[in-house]
This record gives sequence, structure tokens and C-alpha cells, in this order.
Amino acid sequence: MAVTKIFLNESEIPQQWYNIQADLPVPLPPVIHPGTKEPIGPDDLAPLFPMALIGQEVSQERYIDIPEEVLGVYRLWRPTPLVRARRWEKALDTPAKIYYKQEGVSPPGSHKPNTAVPQAYYNKQEGVKRIITETGAGQWGSALSFACNLFDIECKVYMVRISYDQKPYRRLMMETWGAQCLPSPSRETEAGRRILDADPDSPGSLGIAISEAVEEAVKREDTKYSLGSVLNHVMLHQTVIGLESIKQFEMAGEYPDVVIGCVGGGSNFAGFALPFIRDKLTDGRDTKILAVEPTACPTMTKGLYRYDFGDTACTTPLIKMYTLGHDFVPAPIHAGGLRYHGMSPIVCHLYELGQLDVVAYPQTPVFDAAVSFARAEGFLPAPETAHAIKTAFDEAMRCRESGEAKVIAFNYSGHGHFDMGAYERYFNGDMVDHDFSQEEVDEAMRSVPVLE
Amino acid sequence: MAVTKIFLNESEIPQQWYNIQADLPVPLPPVIHPGTKEPIGPDDLAPLFPMALIGQEVSQERYIDIPEEVLGVYRLWRPTPLVRARRWEKALDTPAKIYYKQEGVSPPGSHKPNTAVPQAYYNKQEGVKRIITETGAGQWGSALSFACNLFDIECKVYMVRISYDQKPYRRLMMETWGAQCLPSPSRETEAGRRILDADPDSPGSLGIAISEAVEEAVKREDTKYSLGSVLNHVMLHQTVIGLESIKQFEMAGEYPDVVIGCVGGGSNFAGFALPFIRDKLTDGRDTKILAVEPTACPTMTKGLYRYDFGDTACTTPLIKMYTLGHDFVPAPIHAGGLRYHGMSPIVCHLYELGQLDVVAYPQTPVFDAAVSFARAEGFLPAPETAHAIKTAFDEAMRCRESGEAKVIAFNYSGHGHFDMGAYERYFNGDMVDHDFSQEEVDEAMRSVPVLE
Repeated sequence: MAVTKIFLNESEIPQQWYNIQADLPVPLPPVIHPGTKEPIGPDDLAPLFPMALIGQEVSQERYIDIPEEVLGVYRLWRPTPLVRARRWEKALDTPAKIYYKQEGVSPPGSHKPNTAVPQAYYNKQEGVKRIITETGAGQWGSALSFACNLFDIECKVYMVRISYDQKPYRRLMMETWGAQCLPSPSRETEAGRRILDADPDSPGSLGIAISEAVEEAVKREDTKYSLGSVLNHVMLHQTVIGLESIKQFEMAGEYPDVVIGCVGGGSNFAGFALPFIRDKLTDGRDTKILAVEPTACPTMTKGLYRYDFGDTACTTPLIKMYTLGHDFVPAPIHAGGLRYHGMSPIVCHLYELGQLDVVAYPQTPVFDAAVSFARAEGFLPAPETAHAIKTAFDEAMRCRESGEAKVIAFNYSGHGHFDMGAYERYFNGDMVDHDFSQEEVDEAMRSVPVLE
Repeated sequence: MAVTKIFLNESEIPQQWYNIQADLPVPLPPVIHPGTKEPIGPDDLAPLFPMALIGQEVSQERYIDIPEEVLGVYRLWRPTPLVRARRWEKALDTPAKIYYKQEGVSPPGSHKPNTAVPQAYYNKQEGVKRIITETGAGQWGSALSFACNLFDIECKVYMVRISYDQKPYRRLMMETWGAQCLPSPSRETEAGRRILDADPDSPGSLGIAISEAVEEAVKREDTKYSLGSVLNHVMLHQTVIGLESIKQFEMAGEYPDVVIGCVGGGSNFAGFALPFIRDKLTDGRDTKILAVEPTACPTMTKGLYRYDFGDTACTTPLIKMYTLGHDFVPAPIHAGGLRYHGMSPIVCHLYELGQLDVVAYPQTPVFDAAVSFARAEGFLPAPETAHAIKTAFDEAMRCRESGEAKVIAFNYSGHGHFDMGAYERYFNGDMVDHDFSQEEVDEAMRSVPVLE
């Protein structure tokens, strides 16, 4: 019998996260204080994050134990299946073997709770009563609401107004888990009031929402801030995805030739790919690692590797990363989770080191591939995930031409049940593709701070 | 380590369905032709169904082989996990052990493809090119669209207009799998035109939609009809749920004391419960089997056990079942899948034989229980599934009072990702509970045919 899904038992959930900082041939560039221009220290981050997470942010330990309480929650949906997409292979008439890691089976429907749960846990350990965050499309806000509810922490989510209005079901999901979700800009913060006074109908942006969340977290002693991507500790927590996948490939008697993930802030890609990059760095593996972004937000394919702010209002430290400029507002493509001007410093650093490649696609061919996948395999992917699917599609087609039976693996980061409106626009022919010209890059990059 | 999920390997998917007709102490009453008043034969059903399914409808074989092609599709999501709801047990402070069978992990999000796939397969085997069906809330239409797509069969779904308008995402899901979905009543059939001529704004009903689908299927040689519940072959296919569950309970070293499923037409309940009823009938087990229905559509708790039509337009044979009368229109509760005037003859017959009990709940306490479950276990259930959850809740509370550590098992028939509007009404306090008075029962029952 041809096996389709490779399951692990709960006892095989990794007991430790993998920290790639221990294996980097060149250390990460420091994070810089915008005032002093000096590297920041733990005290600079203490108003925002619990010390355990600040420690993980800079840790050089290769493996970090996953607390038993976190594993207990992971067991609600982990280990996730690694699936051989046999029907899609047949539909594409390719000799390639295509595998996907199914992260859409979590209660919020994506990989995001892999980090939301430990973040809630460490906050709880340090007595935090409230956590504030922002969310764009709603995946991260859902995941943090889910996690905070399990650890009895109050959760407040600033949701970008346009998504708040367009996706009421994501908000309802957060409310079902007991969180408060409100549209940003709001009148709850100075940052929000400033925007609303200037433009009462502002649709909001992720940058504005981050500014509101950070402002409120800094103001209150019992409240911390939480970020769902970009930071090192987020990438760390997500490595459960790749670590499980490697065990599952061992069971299948395979090792992937190509490893694919979509990138917005970088967390699902890193979570899947870092353990495979570990094998490249330490075991001499020659795996092709592919990050995929939308042409409408081509952070790595067209942006520059510079120190920049993580948010629009310039309230965060300066981070060395690929950026399109912190006041860049991406076109309203359906993959809301990929609309971020910056990128995980770890992912950018590995790109600089030649450990991964980056490709970009407009959204129409991305949805072509998503529908091709859904008709063969059944599952309807999120628009973000569809970018990884398009890349797997192209790799499989290359194998069809060359006759190579490559093993292609991608991360199925989330389901599209709350994104059917995007499919509607696709089927109606209303989808608009955005390409980002060099002039626009130059214009956007004018906001990037130049450090001496 | 306390295990949460009990996984089976793909090789442990049952290779045969269980046919309870072989074990019934009294055979099922015959299905009657409304014209001749005689039991119908295979020829009467041949215009609607392929012969393989007609054979399964009346088969007395105890086990029926599942074709390898069907198993191949099942492997896209089966075996499904059996999950110990440890966090919910703790939240309810009950000594009971609560398990649920997670059928929401299928591509369409419910148990429905367990029968959609073999139905599409047998139709394909007999050269059928098109299948017509109806759908209320959209779960069944989605599942059949999914299945027909995999076997390259054209699929057309008449969707009750009010749901078609309220749930565009379900329609989009069907279209993504290549099906045609149109609102019923339509101008495509005589039945539909008759309704629309009388009432151009008719919101439709399941009864009308069935009449349209049957009418079109009868007219065209290459076209068959497909039903997602009620019939014996549907119950048969769904037994994979309970058969897997029994293996999983063996692995857990448990056997349930209470087995629970919600009932509309009866298919998810039967699929879960029939293998446990087998053990009652043949191994002397003393399991409490509970079917749950809404008070707004109390088919078994207030209806009568009579011969009645399966649809409003009286186009089907007469079936001996509990019924509220074939022209009964249930109140617009959110559990659209439970709004059916009749019930699976197998389920009704077993009720008559004393093999199961039936309870009914209004929807507000049902949603109270659903939110309690979602906050503890993460997953957001469909409104139909929430009825089973409410029953498990009450059983667990009884254990808290008595101190008994009973094993309570319910079927998690589907997720609620397309039903968040129902949660919204619940949280807004806009939910209306419907109870069905004896006067209404009497009124509704006036339409039931009285056979000599």
C-alpha cells in the first residue's frame, strides 16, 4: 500500500527547539538602539517581553528545552502529518515526489500557535496578566488569543481596520477564545488618535497597529507585547515544524532535495527550513532551500539589506534586514500575511550567507497552482500557503522536463477557510497582479535610516 | 506522558464497512411504492442510483469490502484522530473521561466525504457522467463536489436559496472543486418553476431542493442522484468512523460507557454508533447510545413512527421513519444539517428496538457547551456537532455529581469555520431558541400519509 500520510506519535514531538544561532558561521548583526546607535541590551526589551524570551532572542545554545506545559498544549494538534501529494504528482504528470507538512490542522488553522503558546507560557511564568498584539489578516491574532486563553492571560488584539471589516469571522474566532479584538487605528492610543484625527476613515496598516500595541504595552506594568514573526525567538519556536518533518522523512526513507516556504515575516519558512539548513551547515547536505514572496511585496528580491525600523512609527529598535522601507504600504493582495516591509533577520542573514534562494510570484499564477493542488489533494490552502504551492508546482514541472525524481517538500502553513473571498475574486477574474518597479523600490527606500 | 490523541496508521483504516442489517433481531420494514403500496424493488430505484448502491441498500452481508480506490481517497484524511479532551475534563472538573472522534479534518470539513467518495466511485464504475444532489447548509454539497472532482464526474448542486445567499463561501468551496452550485428553487426544473411562479422570492427548503435534484436526475440518462444521509448505504459507508474508533479505544485500553452523536438525517450518528451497537447486539455490551436533536426539529422526541415521503414534493418512495411530516419547515436554527423532517430508517428502527436513547436541546445551551469546549480544547465545532458536545457536557456533569469516572465518547462531525455567523449571533445575544409544541406536531403530522 502506498502511504499518503506519515504520522508521528505524540511521544515523538521534539522535546527541544533548534537554535540556528549556534551553528551560524558568522554571527547575526546586532540590533541597534536608534538613539544611542549602540547594540541594545536586555533592559531595552524588558518593557515589551518577558526575560525568558529576551534570553532566547540572543541565546547561542544549540537546543533549548520545550517546557512540558507547552508540549501539553502542542499535543492538542501536534505532531502534524507529513503528506505525500500523490494525486497532485499524478495530475502534474511529474516524476517528482511532492511532500507537504500540514500545519493547517491547529485550532487557529496555521503554524502560528507553535510560537503563541510558548510566548503565552513564558509571560505567564513571569506574572504577566495581559498581552497586547497586532494582527493583519488575523492568523496571528487568532493564535495568540487561543494561547492566552489556555494560560488564563487577558489578550487584546489591534486588528488592521480593513481586515477587521472584511474578515469578521477571524475577529469572532478571537472573541470565542475570550480575547478582545478592536480595529486599528483606534482612539485607545496616542498613535491611533493621531492617525484618526488626520484621517477618520484610515483603513489602518500593520505598521500603525504595531505602534498602538507597543505603546499600550510600554505604558502598563502588567502588560507585555507579543510579536508573531520576525524575531529570533519566534523562528526558534517554529523549528518544531522542520524537526518533526526530518523525523517523518526518515520514516519515509527520503530526504528532500528542495525545501520550500512562503515568507512574510519569515516564521513558517524558517520553522520548516532551519532544521534542513542545520543539516547543510553541519552535515554537508546540499539541499535547495527556497523562500517565496509575492511580487507585490518583494522584500528580499527587490529590497535592500539595511538597518530599518520594524514598524511605521519608528518605535522599534533598528534591525539589520531586507526591507522595502518602514513606511512602505504593500498593495492589497490576498496574502495579507506576506504584506510586511521587513523580514526575519535570521532569514536575511542566511540569504546573505548563500544558504537559501528567494523567488517571487504575482498572485494569479499563485492561485492557479492553489486550485490545481486543491482539486488533486482536496485541501484549500491559505493565499500565503499558495505561494509555496506555486513554487512546488514550478519545481515539479522542471522535473517533468528533466525527468528527475526529486523530492520536493513545502510547508502547508495554513488553510484558506477564512480566505474564500480571495478564491471568489480569482474565479470571477477580478484578481489584480501587482509588480513592484525599481522606481517604487527607490521611492520606498528613501525612508530607510542610514547608519554610519 | 498523558496521551491526548490516538492515531492509527493508514494500514489500519477499516478494509470493510459494517452492515448492521445482518445483526438486526427484526428486519427493517420495507420501503413502499406510493402508487402500488407494494415494497419497491431495485428497478424502482435504478433511475436514481447505480446498482452497486441499490445492492448495498438492501444487503444482508455483515461486512462489505471497501474498494481500494475508495481507500486511496480516504487516505487523504483518514484515519482521523480519537482525542482525549483532557483540558475540557479539567475545566468541567469531572471524573469522566471524555473522548471525541475528530471527523472535521477532512477536506470539506466533516464526515460527509466518507459516503460521498464511495458514491462517486460506484457511479463512475457504472459509467455515470453527472451526479445531481441538493444541499442545505452546504456540508453535503461540498463533500460530493470534492468526491466527484476526484473521479472526474460532473457535479451539480441545488443549494437551498437562503443558505446560498448566506453562505457564499460554501458555494465557492464547491466551485473550487469544479462543481456547479445554483440556488433552489431554480428555473431549471418544473418543480422549481412552479415554486418561483407562486413566490419569486421563495427562500427555498431542503424538500424543494430534493425535488429539483430528483427531477433532473430522472430526466437524463447519463445522470444519477445522490443523497448524503437517511439511506441505508449512507449509514453503511459512515461506519468507518465507529470501526476506527473501536480500534483506537482498544489502543487506549478503554471502551466507552456512553456514545453520542447528533442527528439530522442520522448519518454521522449512525457512522459512529452502529459498530458500538453491533457490540451490544452480539457481545452483550451495555453501552448507552445517545442521539441528540434540536428541540426546533424534534423528529424522534416528538415525531411519530410512520410511513412518510422523504421530500416535500412527494416524489420519493414511502419510508418507515420518525417524521414531523414531509411539509414541515423547521425554524431557521443554525444547525442547518439537523433541519430535516425525517430520519434514517436504521436509526429509527434501532430506537424502536430500544437500542438507543434520544435527547433534544435548544440552541443556546448547545452554544454554551460549544464555547466551553472551544475554550478548553481549541477547536471550534459546527453548530450540528455542538449538539453532541452539549450532551457530552451533561453526561460529564452527571459524573461530577455521582463521582463516576465514565468514558464518554462523542462524534465531532465537523468544524465550524463556515458557521462563525452563528457564533456571532450567540455572542450578540441574538440567538432565538425554538421549542416545538404538541399543537405544532399535530399540525405538521396532518401531511403524513396513512397506509392501510
